[in-house]
Amino acid sequence: MISTETPPDKQTITQFFTGLQDRICAALEETDGGARFQEDLWERAEGGGGRTRILQEGAVIEKGGVLFSAVHGPASEATRRQMNVTEPVDFYATGVSIVLHPRSPMVPIIHMNVRYFELSNGINWFGGGIDLTPHYLDRQDARWFHQQLKTVCDRHHPDFYAKHKAWADDYFYLKHRDETRGVGGIFFDYQKPSEEFSKEAIFAYVQSVGDAFAPIYTHFMRQNRDLPFGEAEKQWQLLRRGRYVEFNLVWDRGTKFGLESNGRTESILMSMPPQANWAYDYKPQPGSREEETLLGLKKGVDWLNPLG
Amino acid sequence: MISTETPPDKQTITQFFTGLQDRICAALEETDGGARFQEDLWERAEGGGGRTRILQEGAVIEKGGVLFSAVHGPASEATRRQMNVTEPVDFYATGVSIVLHPRSPMVPIIHMNVRYFELSNGINWFGGGIDLTPHYLDRQDARWFHQQLKTVCDRHHPDFYAKHKAWADDYFYLKHRDETRGVGGIFFDYQKPSEEFSKEAIFAYVQSVGDAFAPIYTHFMRQNRDLPFGEAEKQWQLLRRGRYVEFNLVWDRGTKFGLESNGRTESILMSMPPQANWAYDYKPQPGSREEETLLGLKKGVDWLNPLG
Repeated sequence: MISTETPPDKQTITQFFTGLQDRICAALEETDGGARFQEDLWERAEGGGGRTRILQEGAVIEKGGVLFSAVHGPASEATRRQMNVTEPVDFYATGVSIVLHPRSPMVPIIHMNVRYFELSNGINWFGGGIDLTPHYLDRQDARWFHQQLKTVCDRHHPDFYAKHKAWADDYFYLKHRDETRGVGGIFFDYQKPSEEFSKEAIFAYVQSVGDAFAPIYTHFMRQNRDLPFGEAEKQWQLLRRGRYVEFNLVWDRGTKFGLESNGRTESILMSMPPQANWAYDYKPQPGSREEETLLGLKKGVDWLNPLG
Repeated sequence: MISTETPPDKQTITQFFTGLQDRICAALEETDGGARFQEDLWERAEGGGGRTRILQEGAVIEKGGVLFSAVHGPASEATRRQMNVTEPVDFYATGVSIVLHPRSPMVPIIHMNVRYFELSNGINWFGGGIDLTPHYLDRQDARWFHQQLKTVCDRHHPDFYAKHKAWADDYFYLKHRDETRGVGGIFFDYQKPSEEFSKEAIFAYVQSVGDAFAPIYTHFMRQNRDLPFGEAEKQWQLLRRGRYVEFNLVWDRGTKFGLESNGRTESILMSMPPQANWAYDYKPQPGSREEETLLGLKKGVDWLNPLG
C-alpha cells in the first residue's frame, strides 16, 4: 500500500502499473526458464501508447502477453454516455493486461487485468480481476486459487471476495454454451471513490490484486509443468482453447471495445492461443475427466468448499 | 426459375431450400470422395427446426457444413424495430448456409447463404451471397469466380453484380485488420418485392445463386486438390483460418445474432475451422506469396480485370 496524504494521481498509478509489468515479466521469465519476453513499444496517434511484451515458445508458456498501456485523448461519445457526462471531456486510461496460454494441458490458462480510468471533469474509477481457466478441472487447485484471492480481498473489505467472485461468474460466461470460461476468480469495474472507499483504499486493493498474480501463477507453473499427459489431453486442450477464443471474440467487452474503436489489434489479440481447434458437436466420454470438467464449469460454485 | 402465377409462398421457397441442400451435399460428396455428410435433425423449442449436415475428414474438405433450417415464432423486439413494425407479429425464416474448410491450403475456403424471411403482417424479403476466401491469392481464380457470379447476376438484372459485389466488399471486411475476408463475391439482404422486382423475380435470383454454388466450388476442389504444398503453406493456412475465426466471431451479424438469441450453437459454429493458429504480429516475408495475398485483400478491387 502506497502511503500518501493526497489521493494517488494518475502519475503514481501509472508508475505502479509499469513497475507491476516489470515484476510480473521477471517472475514469469525466471519460472519459465525457456524463453524471454519480446517488447514492442507503440504510440497511439490520438495520444499515449503502450509497452506490449509477448513470450512465445517458452518451456511452460507457449504464448502469452503482459501488456501495459496509458492512453489519453478526447473521450468518445460512448464513454461519455456510459458515465452520464454531457460536456466534452478528455480521458486517461492506464492498466496492465495478461493472458498466458501454457504448453501443457495440465497447466491452466490465466488472465489478469488491472486498470484505472479518469476523465478531465474529475470522475475516476478502477477495475480489475483475475480468472483461471484449467483445461482439466482440479477442485483442489480451484480451492487453492480462490483461497488466495479471498485472502487478498479480505485484507481490504470483508464483502469484496463474495461480490467480486459473483461478478466474475457473470462476466466470464459463455451464454451460447451455458458454460463459464473456467473456475472464475474475481472481477470488478467502475470502482469510484465514495464515502465508504477512498481513492487510496481502492488503489490499495488494485495493487494487492496485481501483486497477487505472479505468486499465484508461478505456483501453478511449478506444480503442474511436469505432470504427464498424452495426445488425448492435448486434443482436449485445443478444443478448450477454442472456447477461450469464443469467449474473447464474442463476449469480452474489453476485446470488443478495442477492436471496434481502432485499438492496437496485435496487442488486443495477444489473448488468442497459438492454436485452437473445433470439432462439430464434440461430446466427451461419459465419466471421463473431460466430461467432469464440462459439467463443473457452472456459475455459482463455491470453490472454497467444492464438496459442499 | 419456377413458374407460378401467384407469388411463391413459404412452402414453395422452403421446398426449394431443402432440395438445394440435398443437391449440394450430393455434389460435394461425389467430388470429395473421402467422407459423407452426417445429418443432425433438430427442433427449436419456440417453433421449427433444422437439418444440419456436417462433413469432417474428407479427402478435400477437412470440415464443413451444409445447413438447412426453417424456424418460426413470435418476432423479437429487435426484428420488429429493424423492420419498423410496432404490433406483435410472427416470423418465419428459412435458408441454407454453407462454410467449407478444405484440407489443402491451395483450395479456397467458401461460404454461401440464401435465406427468406417473412412476417405475419405480409412483409417478406430475401437475402444471400457467396464469397471466396483463398489462403493464397490467385488472380486468375478470383477472376473466374467473379465471372461466374456476374453471369448469374446478369441473367436477373444488369445492376445486380456491381451492387452486390460492392455490398460483399463492405460486409466481408475485418475492420480491425483493414483486410477483406477474401476476394469477396456477392452479398445482398432485405430484398423485398417492389414495383421493379416481383417476389417471383427475387426468388428466381436467389435460386440462381443457390444453384451456382456446387458447380463453382467443385471446380476449385477438382482444379486445386492435387496442387503441391509444404509445411510453410500449411502454417500460413492456419493463420488465415485464424482471421476467418476473427471475422465470424467479431463481425458477422448472422453469427452474432444467432449466438445472442439462443440459436443452435453447434449449427451456427459449424463455420469454425478444425484448427486455427495465431502468432503475435506475424509479418510475411517481403515479396512472398503470403505478403502478396495480404496486400491483395482490399475493398474495391475489380477482380474481373485484376490487372487494371
